[in-house]
Parts: sequence; structure tokens; C-alpha cells
Amino acid sequence: MTSPDPAPGRVTLVGGGPGDPDLLTLAGLRALQSADIILTDHLAPDVSTLVNGTEVVNVGKTPHGPATPQEEINALLIEHARAGRHVVRLKGGDPFVFGRGGEEFIACADAGVAVAVVPGVTSAVAAPELAGIPVTHRGVSQGFTVVSGHVAPDDPHCHIDWAALAQSGTTLVLLMGVRHLPAIAAALAEGGLPADTPAAVVTKAASPAMQVVRGTLATIADLAVSNSVRPPSVTVIGDVAGLDLR
Amino acid sequence: MTSPDPAPGRVTLVGGGPGDPDLLTLAGLRALQSADIILTDHLAPDVSTLVNGTEVVNVGKTPHGPATPQEEINALLIEHARAGRHVVRLKGGDPFVFGRGGEEFIACADAGVAVAVVPGVTSAVAAPELAGIPVTHRGVSQGFTVVSGHVAPDDPHCHIDWAALAQSGTTLVLLMGVRHLPAIAAALAEGGLPADTPAAVVTKAASPAMQVVRGTLATIADLAVSNSVRPPSVTVIGDVAGLDLR
Repeated sequence: MTSPDPAPGRVTLVGGGPGDPDLLTLAGLRALQSADIILTDHLAPDVSTLVNGTEVVNVGKTPHGPATPQEEINALLIEHARAGRHVVRLKGGDPFVFGRGGEEFIACADAGVAVAVVPGVTSAVAAPELAGIPVTHRGVSQGFTVVSGHVAPDDPHCHIDWAALAQSGTTLVLLMGVRHLPAIAAALAEGGLPADTPAAVVTKAASPAMQVVRGTLATIADLAVSNSVRPPSVTVIGDVAGLDLR
Repeated sequence: MTSPDPAPGRVTLVGGGPGDPDLLTLAGLRALQSADIILTDHLAPDVSTLVNGTEVVNVGKTPHGPATPQEEINALLIEHARAGRHVVRLKGGDPFVFGRGGEEFIACADAGVAVAVVPGVTSAVAAPELAGIPVTHRGVSQGFTVVSGHVAPDDPHCHIDWAALAQSGTTLVLLMGVRHLPAIAAALAEGGLPADTPAAVVTKAASPAMQVVRGTLATIADLAVSNSVRPPSVTVIGDVAGLDLR
């Protein structure tokens, strides 16, 4: 007579949305409430009131601050799942939008650990939206481009063609772009985007502390500095940034 | 002695996500459950089991089929709100991603009707994600562009520079693009996007009937036809479309 196998563990990557727990999905909430352990992130919503005593471990990265290395996060996910736990990896926004969720998914799958993903509300759309800026709008914008501003335009690791984006005709949305905003604005201007193109920086969207700084391609980088804009922020550049639907 | 004013009506635009009611947000669900009337859409999730007898009116547009004109939808929102009702306008995906939510917001605001917006999970990110394709992935893609494929590249109303997008270095996501996929793929190839760039069409994402057709920039339009792909569909073009995180 063999003893029964322990319940198999698994990992669920959950998109936590832009910060307000109310913008979690029903599927995300259900995953959290069935979790044995939650590995959360700097930008993920605070879910402590939604889960009843479940262990929540913050493995989050603060910009340019201390963080758990990605390899260690991957190892933690696998270790807890192999111990038979349902591990929820809670991320800000959507897991596959600059969340390194794809890497975590692959690490789990390669280790033979069952892994699923629950999409979330991406800050790329929701942060502008909550600030009154629609990323698309009939007669104004037929598309939008979401780019990480984490990599400077002149960095050899940058695969983005900023001159092409300047010509694309789409709204540009920069995530994590405050630090490199001067260089990015300059690259867009050099690429032919008019200096008077409306631009806005939205900080701490989906929270009572939300701050919106409005300007133009020419002024937005200086305005971000003079208004002491700090991460996390989302920058929108394009004619829609001149709208204010609030 | 004057009689009290009737309770003021209001409108809430709710992003319903990509189709599965489980991908509604908690805020969206709460709005639906406090609604006096729900005006829903062709692409919005079926919420009949989530609301208890609330009147649900389908004003949705089927592609190239009958639809309530936008002006009439705007007028209905205003009319019901002025009658003191909480009107929820439920949309597929996010209200400000090709949802004409901005127009509805402005129509209400201009009429003096209180209006709020609840962001939703956009199909532009979630449909690829549920098909195993991350729109960004470390070392593969540093950004993504979401474009309506509703307007053909040679249409005078098209404000998108497809040649620039071909050079942008971003993942391309086309919403509502099946009909014009041959012309769009040709424009991207002409703009210099390599013919062997991976591409995928995801149909009926977030439902048990989800279908994923995979090919390349050169083959995807023909494959969509030979696989009888019908709207709603989301097309992803870029190296990430070669990944399969499922």
C-alpha cells in the first residue's frame, strides 16, 4: 500500500491592475483567495484585506533600489509549488506587460510546475484613462504604442526605433520612463514629432495620491522635474494627451 | 414646501474585459450590481448571471451588421440618466481602447450628466496572453503597438504609418483586423518587416471556443482565410508570436 501523493502544487501569475484593489479581476481575486502563499511586487495592489491571513511575501523591486533577483523569485515559485502549495505571483498591471511574467512562466514550465496566467488591467491604458486621457479616440488616435522607458534611446540594448515611433501616428505610452524622459523626448523630437504635441505624466494612478502633469513634447521632461515626479509614473505623448475626460 | 429632487442619475462606462465574465474587475462588477439598466455590446461578456433581473439592453455592433447608431446610444445614456437611473454602459475590453467610450463620456459630460469610467482588461493584451503569447518579453520585445485594423492602410482616413510601424521594433497587435489583414501584412512587408516574422491570429479569446492560428507575416493572411477565421479576432505580429507559453 503506497501513501497517496501530496496535492500537486501550482503557480498562478495574477495581473493585479494599476494599484487599486478594486481593479483586480474576479479570477484574480479567486486565485488570491485560494492561494497558500502570495509573492507580491512593489507595484501590485495591497491585497492584505482581501485574503484571510495568507502569507504575503514582498519580492518587489523598487526602481533602482533593492530587489530580489529574478532567478531567486523563479526559484521561490518552484520551491513552494513543489512543496504542494498554490503559489500566487501577484504583479502590478498585467503579467505579460513588462512584468517579466513570461520568464517566470517559462521557469515554472521548464521545472515541470503547473503554471497559469490571469490577465490584469494594464497601467499603460488605465493610468491615462483615470487621468482623463483615452489612449485612442475617434478622429484623434487610431492606435497606441506602449514602450518601456527603462532603457535609454542611446543604450545599445534599446531595440526601439524612436524615430519610427515619432512617425507612426500612434499615441505613445511610456512605462517606467521618468528617468530617461529628457532623452526620449529629444529622440522623438529629432524623429519629427512636433514640439507642441500634447504630453502628460500620470503618477500614482488608481490611488487618491494620483498626480497629473500636463505639457507638450518640448516641456514635459522639465515639468516632470519641476513637479518632483517620482516613479511609478506613466507618460502619454500624443494629441489625446490634450483631452481631459474627467 | 418643495418636493425633494429625484435621485440624480449617472452613467458608468465599464470595461468588461475580453469576454470571460471572470475577467471583469471588482469595481466593474459592483457598478453592474448597482445599475438600474445596463446597455451592453456585442463584444462585452454575458453578465446575465451576475446581475439579478436588471434590464440589459444590447446596443452592440456586430461587424458589418446592424447596430444602434452611436448618436442613439449617446442619447439613450443621457435619457436614462436624466430619468434618475444609474446607467452602466458595458463594453468589451477597455472603454478607451477603440470602444468609442471617449465619445460617450463627452456626450454625457456635455449634457450635464455625471459620468465615470472603470478600466477593463484590454483584449489587445489578454487575447494574445491567453493564447500563450506575451506582448512584451525580455530579450524579445521592449514594447507593443495596438492598432485598429478596421481602417485599411490605403484608406484616406488611415492615420497610421504602417512603414514606420514595420521599423518601430515593437510587437504589433491588430484589433478588428481580419478583413484588412492581407493589405496590412503587405504594407508591413513593404515597410521592411521580414517575411518570416512570426504572426498569430487569436479568435474568441477568453472562451472555450478560442482558436489560435500561427504563421508568419508572409502566410498569416492566407492562413486566416483557410482556417475560416471570423471576428472577433486579435492578430499579433512580432517575434513574441513565436512563443507559446501555455
